[in-house]
Amino acid sequence: MRGASASFSPQGPGGLMQMFLDGRPRTRSEVVQLTGLARSTVGQRVEALQSIGLLEPIGEAASTGGRPSARFAFNPQARVVVGADIGATHGHVALTDLLGRPLCEIAEPITITDGPAPVLDWLATTTERLLTQSGRDRTDLVGIGIGLPGPVEHSTGRPMQPPIMPGWDRYDVPHHLATALHLDTGSPSDGSPGSPGSATGPVPVLVDNDVNIMALGEHAAAHPHVQHLLFVKVATGIGAGIISGGRLHRGAVGAAGDLGHVAAPGHAQVLCRCGNTGCLEAVAGGPAITTSLHAHGITATSNQDIVQLVRSGSIPTAHAVRQAGRTIGEVLATCVSLLNPSVIVIGGSLAGAGESLIAGVREVVYGRSLPLATSDLQIVPATTGRQAGVIGAATMVTQHVLTADRIDHAIATRGAIA
Amino acid sequence: MRGASASFSPQGPGGLMQMFLDGRPRTRSEVVQLTGLARSTVGQRVEALQSIGLLEPIGEAASTGGRPSARFAFNPQARVVVGADIGATHGHVALTDLLGRPLCEIAEPITITDGPAPVLDWLATTTERLLTQSGRDRTDLVGIGIGLPGPVEHSTGRPMQPPIMPGWDRYDVPHHLATALHLDTGSPSDGSPGSPGSATGPVPVLVDNDVNIMALGEHAAAHPHVQHLLFVKVATGIGAGIISGGRLHRGAVGAAGDLGHVAAPGHAQVLCRCGNTGCLEAVAGGPAITTSLHAHGITATSNQDIVQLVRSGSIPTAHAVRQAGRTIGEVLATCVSLLNPSVIVIGGSLAGAGESLIAGVREVVYGRSLPLATSDLQIVPATTGRQAGVIGAATMVTQHVLTADRIDHAIATRGAIA
Repeated sequence: MRGASASFSPQGPGGLMQMFLDGRPRTRSEVVQLTGLARSTVGQRVEALQSIGLLEPIGEAASTGGRPSARFAFNPQARVVVGADIGATHGHVALTDLLGRPLCEIAEPITITDGPAPVLDWLATTTERLLTQSGRDRTDLVGIGIGLPGPVEHSTGRPMQPPIMPGWDRYDVPHHLATALHLDTGSPSDGSPGSPGSATGPVPVLVDNDVNIMALGEHAAAHPHVQHLLFVKVATGIGAGIISGGRLHRGAVGAAGDLGHVAAPGHAQVLCRCGNTGCLEAVAGGPAITTSLHAHGITATSNQDIVQLVRSGSIPTAHAVRQAGRTIGEVLATCVSLLNPSVIVIGGSLAGAGESLIAGVREVVYGRSLPLATSDLQIVPATTGRQAGVIGAATMVTQHVLTADRIDHAIATRGAIA
Repeated sequence: MRGASASFSPQGPGGLMQMFLDGRPRTRSEVVQLTGLARSTVGQRVEALQSIGLLEPIGEAASTGGRPSARFAFNPQARVVVGADIGATHGHVALTDLLGRPLCEIAEPITITDGPAPVLDWLATTTERLLTQSGRDRTDLVGIGIGLPGPVEHSTGRPMQPPIMPGWDRYDVPHHLATALHLDTGSPSDGSPGSPGSATGPVPVLVDNDVNIMALGEHAAAHPHVQHLLFVKVATGIGAGIISGGRLHRGAVGAAGDLGHVAAPGHAQVLCRCGNTGCLEAVAGGPAITTSLHAHGITATSNQDIVQLVRSGSIPTAHAVRQAGRTIGEVLATCVSLLNPSVIVIGGSLAGAGESLIAGVREVVYGRSLPLATSDLQIVPATTGRQAGVIGAATMVTQHVLTADRIDHAIATRGAIA
């Protein structure tokens, strides 16, 4: 399969658009040269993509004699996306362009335990406010992406037995939002995609867990060309998001990346809230660190406290964080042997604790993994910080709506991209 | 991304062929109905696919009045593939059809330590013998797939620091075979794909490690519709092949699935031949089992001896094998949490030891993994047995040559599929 499916497939305007997603402007003649398509075909496809706003003329190329040629480029402002990062106690929503770049944002405290209706009504209202703030029309919105703090069945958008989200189990999140915002999501339960009554065409609502969303955000924003990446969130809980072959690996029931309850070697006696013993998050998560600091007479009540203590030079705290990093590293060494990623990104609220955490991870992973698997491995801190969630949620939507098939479908129907 | 890229893309004959790969016969009218393509377009594409032999008429559909309609189906006999499974002391080569089903096979002892030239010359001669035996012409051959007992850089077909293959490090396996068989492999180092001097068109030579090949074979033959599968080889060494989203996950440098040197919890004192301690294969591989049997006064000198002892009712051997299964299960529990497969297949020469091995694996995996990840998890023995390697090697080739792009390219050029 090497290279076969990644090769450029020039059929249809949607296929041609894939080439322009790199952001580089090209003239029609350059496209003819790059694709081998007939000049008239290129002209028609460029026109079709212009008609739905995805391509725009951006001035003329330097001429080698004769008339100068118009250059066209991807217009990421053509439509907007909502990316939402819903945590236990915070809601962070961004309106982004088609590259997942935030145009405006709203972050407010919410309470996930209030249940799905008030939280999703808040998200719907916030979406309306962001559209108004940015002066964009409802018809400009091509999709909504949502990250939730628990397991989600991505294919239906329903949370699955989420431990910290009472009332959310199997709740139909896309349906609630679609109703609140009068959207046609184009999902099978709505009947045919893009029913004639909708002015906007289908606007999909896609949902996933917060760690997968952060992995997508960090991959898109900081490592777009990396094929195999492991994103590890280290906070109160510990989890991972896996990029395999450039795509998110969700697993059979969407449970992939659940590292928090993997056995941490040598800690069989530590009880975990899941009912098992020796789980990684019970040994190396935020609460485990605060407990170990307590034994040193140091009081930390939050992950932020731990980060502050490390930054202010508390040596016992730096030691405790580094030891947590080593324990996480023992589990990650197995992940490296299994997956052979080229980049591991460490994110989450404890990643702010300077180099202490990541140094512990590196120490064990490089010591324990096979030389071949670590020959080109980088272990780096996350760079998107608090924005990883909203960027990732928006990226989930743009990857969904900017495929060749969906662009062709949009052109063939009403010009809505979805 | 849900469903987007998996949807049927009807452009070109190659795209249409993807629909027929399921083996079901269809009339032109049925294709028109299924794809929405114009009747004339369907006629042209069916004719193009017939011209290179991939589709063949197979009698007529029952008519509802008027003339009966011709039905067409995928003809997997149109071309042949060579699948080779090269081990430390055995070579097993099959000529297969385009579904990877063996038509004839040759298995002979070889010595991998003789180095690449004699082994690959043997493979070239064996390929010629199989073509002659089956009465197929060299021009019928569309590709050669090879599994080798060590790490391989799949993109170049070169072994990478293989521990038991002296003389093979970075050896250009495809080039050697192409020269010996006078093939044009279509690889970039040969210049343009399909040089005019070749009667057969490009015949790619694809290489991977033996465990990845077995994973492909078991997936294709026994679990073709499973998206997420983990194949585990338990023999002298221990390794895994990962199917993620229906495709083989090879990792950044092709080292994915290397479970043999992952730390087995609680065995930090056991020395491994890799220079590290506590590695899974040093604790639970064949030699570790024979050592533990020796302490009971039981002599076993090979994995086959161990399997025979279990089958003949040796309780200490069954105990030792079950304990090895438990240790393997501890590492697999982490793999389950990380990857969330729906099927784990246990293969390799020790998998023949009845239920003892797999019972140990199940005991620990179901006890240790999270309920959500194991809710639909099956842990089953391999079914392809000694044929897994050759079927997988042939499958690697058919997946490569039967893509839409390559079929379209074949039709546009000389009718060779590659």
